[in-house]
Amino acid sequence: MDARIAEHRTAGVTLTVTADGAPLAGREVTVAQRSHAFRFGCTGFEFIPLANGEPDSAALEPVAERWLELFDFATLPFYWGRFEPVRGRPDTARLRRCAEWFVERGCLVKGHPLAWHTVTADWLRELSNPEILAAQLDRIRREVGEFAGVIDVWDVINEVVIMPIFDRYDNGLTRVCRDRGRIGLIRDVFAAARETNPQATLLLNDFDMSAAYECLIEGVLEAGVRIDALGLQSHMHQGYWGEEKTLATLDRFARYGLPIHFTETTIVSGEPMPPEIVDLNDFQPEQWPSTEAGEARQADEIVRHYRTLLSHPSVQAMTYWGISDGGWLGAPGGFLRADGTPKPAYHALHKLIKDEWWVSPTALVTDDAGQVRFRGFLGEYDISVADTTATVSVDTPGQAAAAVAL
Amino acid sequence: MDARIAEHRTAGVTLTVTADGAPLAGREVTVAQRSHAFRFGCTGFEFIPLANGEPDSAALEPVAERWLELFDFATLPFYWGRFEPVRGRPDTARLRRCAEWFVERGCLVKGHPLAWHTVTADWLRELSNPEILAAQLDRIRREVGEFAGVIDVWDVINEVVIMPIFDRYDNGLTRVCRDRGRIGLIRDVFAAARETNPQATLLLNDFDMSAAYECLIEGVLEAGVRIDALGLQSHMHQGYWGEEKTLATLDRFARYGLPIHFTETTIVSGEPMPPEIVDLNDFQPEQWPSTEAGEARQADEIVRHYRTLLSHPSVQAMTYWGISDGGWLGAPGGFLRADGTPKPAYHALHKLIKDEWWVSPTALVTDDAGQVRFRGFLGEYDISVADTTATVSVDTPGQAAAAVAL
Repeated sequence: MDARIAEHRTAGVTLTVTADGAPLAGREVTVAQRSHAFRFGCTGFEFIPLANGEPDSAALEPVAERWLELFDFATLPFYWGRFEPVRGRPDTARLRRCAEWFVERGCLVKGHPLAWHTVTADWLRELSNPEILAAQLDRIRREVGEFAGVIDVWDVINEVVIMPIFDRYDNGLTRVCRDRGRIGLIRDVFAAARETNPQATLLLNDFDMSAAYECLIEGVLEAGVRIDALGLQSHMHQGYWGEEKTLATLDRFARYGLPIHFTETTIVSGEPMPPEIVDLNDFQPEQWPSTEAGEARQADEIVRHYRTLLSHPSVQAMTYWGISDGGWLGAPGGFLRADGTPKPAYHALHKLIKDEWWVSPTALVTDDAGQVRFRGFLGEYDISVADTTATVSVDTPGQAAAAVAL
Repeated sequence: MDARIAEHRTAGVTLTVTADGAPLAGREVTVAQRSHAFRFGCTGFEFIPLANGEPDSAALEPVAERWLELFDFATLPFYWGRFEPVRGRPDTARLRRCAEWFVERGCLVKGHPLAWHTVTADWLRELSNPEILAAQLDRIRREVGEFAGVIDVWDVINEVVIMPIFDRYDNGLTRVCRDRGRIGLIRDVFAAARETNPQATLLLNDFDMSAAYECLIEGVLEAGVRIDALGLQSHMHQGYWGEEKTLATLDRFARYGLPIHFTETTIVSGEPMPPEIVDLNDFQPEQWPSTEAGEARQADEIVRHYRTLLSHPSVQAMTYWGISDGGWLGAPGGFLRADGTPKPAYHALHKLIKDEWWVSPTALVTDDAGQVRFRGFLGEYDISVADTTATVSVDTPGQAAAAVAL
């Protein structure tokens, strides 16, 4: 697996340093990685109050520091029923401030999701199906337009496999998806997002990892709808998938030649949810504690999971579903305990991302041709020679050439 | 449920009898049903030797008589690996004779299947993917063409949901489906069948009743492939589905506005297969006896299942998977025991099809307008007045008018 990670994620870089076109021999060069090309992401829902300077939110500063030490790809919540509980009063300003807060800190931001039957706006139920569809498309155009330049990555539509047959409660999206068909609705929502922000990265996202999602994707692609990346959820409240299942899943979905994002991963540090639970929402115990044994297991599984994902060339991003315990379902799925202290998984992931897979500032000396060589993960590197620093981007695995002209 | 059966399956018929254009009043008219519009079907694999007059096949005569008392829609086997185990030597003559044997006895015949990864030809594995596809399409054109007029109903392709990810053993169809995509392959095989016999009824058939099959169907329809009927398998070796699941399944697949065939139904009269078995092929006990209690239960479930199917207007046909015990998996799924004696389910189904849902010869007398009225199931009726018999077809539920001119 490490060999595949090296093959798909690293490059041997030959860097030539010149001044006035002539190679500079015997010069000390410091190479320091700035960022990863792979997107290490996490939800950032809890930082909306902090970014907006709301009362009592300063307590989140240490959590934010921990977050920013690990991640540079934030998912922010656009659940329609919470974003616009009263029609015409969207929570745009607060979300924008939070998105900007992340951008100011060097992060890429994704909005999640623009269309979903769960937590959709209740007021849709008073509308006819054509009105629901029109409101949904207007909503997409509004958010994608108003956030363009700050949020250019969107989970456009979520969980379409189950959407038209979802039978837990009545909602506008299930109605309109049943009426219009899965592919028809996907075509509509992607068209609305695409026409509003042609630069955006638009994802189809689902939790259903069965052949159903494959069939849906094949139908969507056959229908000529352009998808920029496939989102695979992977909440593992019932236990870590393991390498074999993860790689088999990746192979099935990599067949379409599209980039893959693991969009929603949770690995718990407590007792796993019983295997007989089908809808994870059905298991919400009053207490779901993180345990010492569970934390050790979680740290091991986190490392194995990230290694597995990076070993497969199709995966471009991984979003963990919450840095702190007590998020969705109250699960102990975070890297930080409820009291804010880091679990072993935090340290383990930090070691991977910012140590094993990271080039810390390293001093090298150029040869007679003015060259230094190093191997590093794909991403951006600061190259410093004396007082001058240049940034080079290493984008493709294998052998790479870079040049810095002083 | 009986009300829905009456609504969707019966008509009140007003029959006018005339002679030289004038109504014949006070004349005795005998109405006798000839056939059902609904297709009550069953596999007919075991009658290939009988139809071909092969040695020892005469023992099947009584089974054939039982078969023909209940059914008029036969499914015959075209599993490629058995039909053409040596390339270029297809079993066409024997199959054709058997198909003709059924047609001579008033039956409609379906061929099953033209493309499937299971029991496909082994020799495909020596070919490249383009060669496999070409051989598959040639095979379809050959069978559909050579049997046209005798077999005009085909399960064109079987179990596409799992086809490209089937991992039990290597086979040509999985390879080519993976290469070409599910929808691409479906388009190709339907085009080959359609162009060869534009009159044929062409089915897509699957055992996967999950959202995966829905998504596949939506993709296929979105891609503009014409499907004449959807085949839903329903082997119930693990227990009868019950009315609720059956109707919920029907509702999901009826959304596409296509006729539905229940293509492969089995209800066992022995112990059900344990629920933890996922691939039914994994359970093949040495002995799987029919029991007295099981036979009583089976008879009840058979009646409930047929009633449920006829209560839903989308269902046009129901094929039972084997009249005799000891067929697929050795299961006691037949209407006849291994010794050929009929089980309670046989009598129960006979009572439904040929009694409760059947107009036996009935004498009526025309009124002053030369009319008689009767209510019957959709199908064909022989109308006899004195020495003259005419056949009328009652095709649509509700009120129907028919006329016989002597």
